[in-house]
Amino acid sequence: MPGTPPPATAFTAADHAFMARALRLAEWGAYTTKPNPMVGCVLAKDGEVVGEGLHVRAGEPHAEVNALRAAGDAAKGATAYVTLEPCAHTGRTGPCAEALVEAGVARVVAAMQDPFPDVSGKGFERLRTAGIEVACGLMEAQARHLNRGFLSRIERGRPWVRVKLATSLDGRTALANGESKWISGEASRLDVQHWRARSSVILTGAGTVLADDPLLTARLEDDRPVIPPMRVVLDPGLATVARGRVREGDAPTLYVHAPDTKPPRGLDAQIVSAPVKAGRFDLDAVLRMLAERHQANEVHVEAGATLAGAFLQAGLLDELVLYVAPVLLGGKARPLFDGLDIATMADRLRLEVLDSRRFGEDTRLVLGPAGRG
Amino acid sequence: MPGTPPPATAFTAADHAFMARALRLAEWGAYTTKPNPMVGCVLAKDGEVVGEGLHVRAGEPHAEVNALRAAGDAAKGATAYVTLEPCAHTGRTGPCAEALVEAGVARVVAAMQDPFPDVSGKGFERLRTAGIEVACGLMEAQARHLNRGFLSRIERGRPWVRVKLATSLDGRTALANGESKWISGEASRLDVQHWRARSSVILTGAGTVLADDPLLTARLEDDRPVIPPMRVVLDPGLATVARGRVREGDAPTLYVHAPDTKPPRGLDAQIVSAPVKAGRFDLDAVLRMLAERHQANEVHVEAGATLAGAFLQAGLLDELVLYVAPVLLGGKARPLFDGLDIATMADRLRLEVLDSRRFGEDTRLVLGPAGRG
Repeated sequence: MPGTPPPATAFTAADHAFMARALRLAEWGAYTTKPNPMVGCVLAKDGEVVGEGLHVRAGEPHAEVNALRAAGDAAKGATAYVTLEPCAHTGRTGPCAEALVEAGVARVVAAMQDPFPDVSGKGFERLRTAGIEVACGLMEAQARHLNRGFLSRIERGRPWVRVKLATSLDGRTALANGESKWISGEASRLDVQHWRARSSVILTGAGTVLADDPLLTARLEDDRPVIPPMRVVLDPGLATVARGRVREGDAPTLYVHAPDTKPPRGLDAQIVSAPVKAGRFDLDAVLRMLAERHQANEVHVEAGATLAGAFLQAGLLDELVLYVAPVLLGGKARPLFDGLDIATMADRLRLEVLDSRRFGEDTRLVLGPAGRG
Repeated sequence: MPGTPPPATAFTAADHAFMARALRLAEWGAYTTKPNPMVGCVLAKDGEVVGEGLHVRAGEPHAEVNALRAAGDAAKGATAYVTLEPCAHTGRTGPCAEALVEAGVARVVAAMQDPFPDVSGKGFERLRTAGIEVACGLMEAQARHLNRGFLSRIERGRPWVRVKLATSLDGRTALANGESKWISGEASRLDVQHWRARSSVILTGAGTVLADDPLLTARLEDDRPVIPPMRVVLDPGLATVARGRVREGDAPTLYVHAPDTKPPRGLDAQIVSAPVKAGRFDLDAVLRMLAERHQANEVHVEAGATLAGAFLQAGLLDELVLYVAPVLLGGKARPLFDGLDIATMADRLRLEVLDSRRFGEDTRLVLGPAGRG
């Protein structure tokens, strides 16, 4: 182990258990809180949970308010475990810091500060002023991972980009003729629906619309409510705008076209133009537009090797969800990422494996960038 | 579940536990018993192990004899658990069935019959004649898997073929310039040594010798003895016979050349010719030669995409050990298997995942053929 190990945490085992519960509650809101962050809250007293809640949907009460309502008078003297600093401003709902003070909680443990620079720390300040003990940073890494989409939008001004690909063992996503269905198995295809459901945007290219005609909605096997992600089609010439299943269903669809494309008259579709550089969309500009105008936290890319390769090349891929199916498609089939030309082993692109598990016959790898070398 | 489930086993939980122990003992001999099968034996009485042993090395005592020696008088009235039918013939050592009779064991439980058609069942017959209770078939699948190399040689007349490949996420085994070192990590490379150590033959092609100059020996981190696998180089024109690390070290090296190649005068190397079909070695003939002349049980192939593809195409790949490293090598790098040309999704080649686990940053998949569809 290099250097000095980190100091022992000041938090108890019970603190960890309650915060872990608060994080699980927060994640339960993954399909409905967008564009808001997921937040969970647990109120505990004498080692027992006296109330818990989560933020379910934008415009509805925050996690702290739901937990306080559930606890009633038992909140008095309790510790509140929250996955994000309680808000101190009056938005669509009242300030949570105020509600915690009024309920008489004795201590507040937060996983992380509010990322908004203007309000960051103000919730804690309000609590401390009222004499409440405040501690921050318990399971912060987990809390940041949970809200990586929201944090990316606030901190970087662009959404978190997840690219989903299904590949054969020999690294192929489609046959030479473009056929790509049924590479991965049913368990993988069900899993994909969960990634879609938590996303703000499902993004694809005109090529995929033409080749596969996907619906690109989130269809869960149970009846859990989902705020349908907006489907975004990168279609420079608006070649696919008149047709396709991507226009069907409840979810909105947005077509992104090149600035020099003249939209057809009387077009019944949401369209927007985005800048093009060297014949290709400026993907960073597209992402910033999605963050700013559509409050997109997580963008889920389901496209072919060309668009996947373009995100990778632009350094805009934050997370790769790769389903590796135990099939071989042969050397003439299409590659995983187009446009990736590596000449020496020193230049190979390294990724970091964040998670690896089986889905039916397939292996799902979740990877993140790890720099070169 | 289709059809009727199999009937309940006649074996007890204790029977299973002792046979599992016998199988573990047997496998401990993996690096030294070749060309003999791995065999383990446990003697148990009143629920306790009274002696155990394994077959360590050809020419040395069989597992049963080692277990009987360990048990001494305690063998009388015991149950003997053996992973293979005790032999009834006098080979380099005396017949084990006879030794079990003389020791006075009461019951013999075997995982499987001896696969040699001429002697199969004769060991059991000898035991039954002496009044010993005999049962066969406990954990037979595991016993067959353990000795899949030996069984392949006896039953199919050719060795078991394992192809080891290290691949990037995008299914590439080498860069366009042939560079292939350091795709997989250190944990994977250590694991490869164990596969090599249990093999009778490590087989490669002239291209790999020229590109990588590998030593192809089994180097284990501990001091466990290994009977060094024979290194076999498929080198039609004997282009590499004069050089290379593959000639160094304790292990023998055999070069296989095309029938029309005239070996250089005074050549100091083991060579043999093998038939060629349509410009390529007849791999089935090569394997049969290795089984017949060299008693090869397991052939471990470490080669490039050309030779790996040739084994796959010929239907001669029994097991694929694939280390998937979290790197990308790009679309110009070399494919996993050469010569695999698949036109429609219905023709995709399906494999079966037998095992999947992490080795450091890499994922190791062990796969077997699963037919097309």
